[in-house]
Amino acid sequence: MSDSSIGKLFKVTTFGESHGRGIGCIVDGCPPNLELSEADLQPDLDRRKPGQSKFTTQRREPDEVQIFSGVFEGKTTGTSIGMIIHNTDQKSKDYSNIMDTFRPGHADYTYFRKYGHRDYRGGGRSSARTTAMIVAAGGIAKKYLREKAGIEIQAYLAQMGHIHIDSVDFAEISQNPFNCPDASKVGAMEELITQLRRDGDSVGAKITVVAKQVPVGLGEPVFNELDADIAKALMSINAVKGVEIGAGFDAVAQRGSEHRDEIFPDGFASNNAGGILGGISSGQDIIASLALKPTSSITKPGMSVNRQGEPVEVVTKGRHDPCVGIRAVPIAEAMLAIVLMDHYLRHRAQNSDVQLSTPAIPAQRPA
Amino acid sequence: MSDSSIGKLFKVTTFGESHGRGIGCIVDGCPPNLELSEADLQPDLDRRKPGQSKFTTQRREPDEVQIFSGVFEGKTTGTSIGMIIHNTDQKSKDYSNIMDTFRPGHADYTYFRKYGHRDYRGGGRSSARTTAMIVAAGGIAKKYLREKAGIEIQAYLAQMGHIHIDSVDFAEISQNPFNCPDASKVGAMEELITQLRRDGDSVGAKITVVAKQVPVGLGEPVFNELDADIAKALMSINAVKGVEIGAGFDAVAQRGSEHRDEIFPDGFASNNAGGILGGISSGQDIIASLALKPTSSITKPGMSVNRQGEPVEVVTKGRHDPCVGIRAVPIAEAMLAIVLMDHYLRHRAQNSDVQLSTPAIPAQRPA
Amino acid sequence: MSDSSIGKLFKVTTFGESHGRGIGCIVDGCPPNLELSEADLQPDLDRRKPGQSKFTTQRREPDEVQIFSGVFEGKTTGTSIGMIIHNTDQKSKDYSNIMDTFRPGHADYTYFRKYGHRDYRGGGRSSARTTAMIVAAGGIAKKYLREKAGIEIQAYLAQMGHIHIDSVDFAEISQNPFNCPDASKVGAMEELITQLRRDGDSVGAKITVVAKQVPVGLGEPVFNELDADIAKALMSINAVKGVEIGAGFDAVAQRGSEHRDEIFPDGFASNNAGGILGGISSGQDIIASLALKPTSSITKPGMSVNRQGEPVEVVTKGRHDPCVGIRAVPIAEAMLAIVLMDHYLRHRAQNSDVQLSTPAIPAQRPA
Amino acid sequence: MSDSSIGKLFKVTTFGESHGRGIGCIVDGCPPNLELSEADLQPDLDRRKPGQSKFTTQRREPDEVQIFSGVFEGKTTGTSIGMIIHNTDQKSKDYSNIMDTFRPGHADYTYFRKYGHRDYRGGGRSSARTTAMIVAAGGIAKKYLREKAGIEIQAYLAQMGHIHIDSVDFAEISQNPFNCPDASKVGAMEELITQLRRDGDSVGAKITVVAKQVPVGLGEPVFNELDADIAKALMSINAVKGVEIGAGFDAVAQRGSEHRDEIFPDGFASNNAGGILGGISSGQDIIASLALKPTSSITKPGMSVNRQGEPVEVVTKGRHDPCVGIRAVPIAEAMLAIVLMDHYLRHRAQNSDVQLSTPAIPAQRPA
Repeated sequence: MSDSSIGKLFKVTTFGESHGRGIGCIVDGCPPNLELSEADLQPDLDRRKPGQSKFTTQRREPDEVQIFSGVFEGKTTGTSIGMIIHNTDQKSKDYSNIMDTFRPGHADYTYFRKYGHRDYRGGGRSSARTTAMIVAAGGIAKKYLREKAGIEIQAYLAQMGHIHIDSVDFAEISQNPFNCPDASKVGAMEELITQLRRDGDSVGAKITVVAKQVPVGLGEPVFNELDADIAKALMSINAVKGVEIGAGFDAVAQRGSEHRDEIFPDGFASNNAGGILGGISSGQDIIASLALKPTSSITKPGMSVNRQGEPVEVVTKGRHDPCVGIRAVPIAEAMLAIVLMDHYLRHRAQNSDVQLSTPAIPAQRPA
Repeated sequence: MSDSSIGKLFKVTTFGESHGRGIGCIVDGCPPNLELSEADLQPDLDRRKPGQSKFTTQRREPDEVQIFSGVFEGKTTGTSIGMIIHNTDQKSKDYSNIMDTFRPGHADYTYFRKYGHRDYRGGGRSSARTTAMIVAAGGIAKKYLREKAGIEIQAYLAQMGHIHIDSVDFAEISQNPFNCPDASKVGAMEELITQLRRDGDSVGAKITVVAKQVPVGLGEPVFNELDADIAKALMSINAVKGVEIGAGFDAVAQRGSEHRDEIFPDGFASNNAGGILGGISSGQDIIASLALKPTSSITKPGMSVNRQGEPVEVVTKGRHDPCVGIRAVPIAEAMLAIVLMDHYLRHRAQNSDVQLSTPAIPAQRPA
Repeated sequence: MSDSSIGKLFKVTTFGESHGRGIGCIVDGCPPNLELSEADLQPDLDRRKPGQSKFTTQRREPDEVQIFSGVFEGKTTGTSIGMIIHNTDQKSKDYSNIMDTFRPGHADYTYFRKYGHRDYRGGGRSSARTTAMIVAAGGIAKKYLREKAGIEIQAYLAQMGHIHIDSVDFAEISQNPFNCPDASKVGAMEELITQLRRDGDSVGAKITVVAKQVPVGLGEPVFNELDADIAKALMSINAVKGVEIGAGFDAVAQRGSEHRDEIFPDGFASNNAGGILGGISSGQDIIASLALKPTSSITKPGMSVNRQGEPVEVVTKGRHDPCVGIRAVPIAEAMLAIVLMDHYLRHRAQNSDVQLSTPAIPAQRPA
Repeated sequence: MSDSSIGKLFKVTTFGESHGRGIGCIVDGCPPNLELSEADLQPDLDRRKPGQSKFTTQRREPDEVQIFSGVFEGKTTGTSIGMIIHNTDQKSKDYSNIMDTFRPGHADYTYFRKYGHRDYRGGGRSSARTTAMIVAAGGIAKKYLREKAGIEIQAYLAQMGHIHIDSVDFAEISQNPFNCPDASKVGAMEELITQLRRDGDSVGAKITVVAKQVPVGLGEPVFNELDADIAKALMSINAVKGVEIGAGFDAVAQRGSEHRDEIFPDGFASNNAGGILGGISSGQDIIASLALKPTSSITKPGMSVNRQGEPVEVVTKGRHDPCVGIRAVPIAEAMLAIVLMDHYLRHRAQNSDVQLSTPAIPAQRPA
């Protein structure tokens, strides 16, 4: 099977392989009357695309998105939005070496065993190139949430290899090529990438994504909780091996008296919950983190087998990222936006009967 | 809304509140001709239920499941399986103190703001009591996977507070009241629970769940990958704040040359991937971990507000678990079973056209 | 598989067989704060249940529904509503004659070939008894739509065998045992049923179901149109072989100049469309009709084969309806209610951004 | 919302408007290793496209489909298949007359009220042009079903206005411009179309679609029965107002002893059921019919209102079909193929455990 869709009311379905004719998606469920053009989506696509700095891959993919439908006279019509990015950097190179080889850490073997037939060029459907459509689709959600609901979403690199950030300055994120919110760590990151290039190796990363001004009440009570859907969406990004909400794995060593976020009339005293209680948003910042593995596309030789089961040495040449986490920052934002948009629409479906006199609790107690 | 369903081909839908008439579920999509009776499901329900040892809550809930439909002459018919557990421990006690109070760390506030009306008795729909139906439904999946596909699923407590396990002996798990696979840590865990009882406090836990003999090829390529669905399922368990596949967050500090699991003709050399490559099972053990927060139901007083926005001191009396992770072990197994069952059926839908001559790679290289 | 669910935002999932422990359903997605008790649902269940008049089957099934969850202090909570009807009329009779026989016109053969194992008692899962849960679930939708949206739904018997109604008087429907809106036809219907009893035979029926005061805008533009979902819901009722919207099959012989419903400032001039244009409700009455086949459970002998492929003569003894269409009237209402409720919630999800100054067109031009 | 998807395991999602950049779809769930190229899909697209004979619209739309993904080296890969047809016949004409007018019988009014903003050019999203993607997607299903399962699907025009066919000769269907299986009616149909052209009017049609060699067991028992899904799929085709399975509305006047299809060791004696019993295929031919209304796009003037609620006279100029049923024949085939493909995959998901010794009943008793 395939089942390349995410979302229920705001549903994104994608297609496309790394080296085919192009990639595309259908965004289904965007309400009408949102002002929208390609220019709204291109900036995030540019943040994701390769070749933006010397610290990421030097491949050139213009990634120019075309909106085919669902927008008329500059505004969404409420019907399905089709989008295409044509593939332009399809070098007609020789793939005979990877055609029969299962690169370790890649999906070559699993795709081949699942389907018996695979597009091996550049990873085919398993390529991270497919995340461009997530960024495009998520861009629509981000714009809607920002303009219609006041929700702001921003992600940053929280860790690269052993380099942890010490502080978060949102204004700093766009000021360095790593999407790092802590200016004091940028130098160390530069050094690490340079070293990795030299070693022909790669390193993992941790990204944190934050949504602010999220209304209380998003999320279903059981199985389709907001945190469950966030976990699914973030885990479905290529190379992700872990997801946390709020305190995440640090909660294991916490005491209940420490973890529970006490509430005062002037606001929550802390946010270990990451803005979600019982699967439903609390009005605090939604905070989620994701762990990205180091890419397996490295020039350091590694052992594997071919289709005949014979041992082969693998060296992945080409223009690969030493740390895929850097370019994954807008992808994490897009994914969170898609999930929040979906639950925002779900909530609106049931919400109009609810009349509340109880005062809302401020997201954060004044320091 | 509500949307209390998980799964696509093996779909579980639940209902029920902590103190209502009962809880139940519908398991839809179980193939016919599986031998099944309540006796197959009761052992896991008993592992989950309160009062099993002095280290968990002393509430008494017999949790006797009744199968209403979908089984005839001892075998499943292929039609929907309805199951009920009647609530019997509904003490008609006085809830006036929590009726108007939003307990910190609980879903009281978010449910109230979302719905404007909530069953506050024992947490209502947000109670972990609802996980009994997950265990019952997952029990069907576990049995099917074991008998028809040879897949074995087992979970264990990997960390309690600051106590990490050093080794995993699957035979040990059922020999102590903590589902701990490392006998050398049991004493420390006993002490910790005793201390928490004394302090009126609680602590978090990390559970690891493993599936063995999983066939290659389970999982969709984009958005509905096996790891994405596992992340969603595990995150939807009450109190879970983080999910990892394989190396998880440790992958952040790994090098690519270290993380990628090299392949040799006699098997994979390691399993940092946790058995999933490109979202699709590789035939290696599926390994997932989840972080459970410390329960907020503690006797140590904490501050909160009531429906009028006034400050109140909260003390949660009653019979609560100092570490909810202990009883969550069969829930994690059930959830993984539900996801694997769903993808096993999905795979079967597309699989019959695939003819492979390529030899399968052994899950683990001989040591 | 099974997949016993209908609806997307208002989702109904059922379980149960004719002679098992009981039947039940989960209604997921009902908004909170709807006043609800069993007493709201029982009247429609009583309209459907056997033994209401001498013109339907004389079986006794009290069909008392129990609400297990999702309602607290007399109002819905917004969480999933579990309902059960225990089977009480399970005569422990001898089924050996039908155990191995595939009754013609029944699902015996198809279930057996599909599943290889079936509950043959009273038709098992294929029994029309399962429609009791549709009526219960639809009762919630009907109440919500009536109280919160002003929508009224009513069905009637439009044809029994060759007896067509000439006029529709909604007040007459409940005044005769046939749900017939034309008092002048009641006598002929009585005679026909009496004759059928004598012949050991049965006859088909046509039901028309009407929804009034439906807001403009319900339905999706492509594939999940309001008419498409109505067609699916009505066709899924046992014994239904055809569905029409508005003019239905009469539209085949109409001219475009006749069929198109002209519009005037004081309203639509006709309603050949049945209240749906381009898949979306127009504000006119939703009008749908369904054809029910004559039940195959008759005492007149018929030929069939058994599991061994040998010829057998089939005589269905027992207490069966000569015209199942009579009791299907509340089922048709329930199904339409479920579909409208689902689309009402869908519409609310997208609707709040739409600001319209254009005047609405009255549903029907004054005569 | 929008929700432009149909199918569960074989899922088709479409986008595009009549006069936008193009139309497209994603076919998700096609198994791997099916030989596929655009050339396989073009013949059915050509059967549907305008301008094929003087009896349909003279618009020119080349309707050349491009496969963007999911096919590699001439075979499907099992991943999502993206397809595009660029719009080429977008005359930049003056739409000011219909911009503000709600044409009677069209979706203008309902779209406008639903969304508050609509692409009015050529009907926008509600245009029958969108059915080209159904034909393309259905073409994949037809090919798969034919090659892998031996299922053949063919539709024909069964009635045009008052002209009923008397006999069905499948070989005749492609021999006349009406897809009519009865050569003796072709002359009358020619006359009728000529007359309609003269009158500036249109007429309805009835199409019957047949699937042969369908295996026993396709369809879910409740709510997602094969007939229910067929009804939904066919009703979602533009202009369809009614759907029948087998005897359809004729079943209303039948006796049970006549309608039930008796079974003999050498086969079923009749096929009033249309190949579906209890929602599940019986191995007999699947037979479904659909009623298409006469198009409202006629030159005969009709009354309507504009956005200001003022009366306007509407004359639809342009190149429209006097009988849209003619070109809808391949659409009906495509829709049935999509539904059968979906249920074929569903069935395969559960089927492998079923071992049957019972002999299958031949579809039709020898005459």
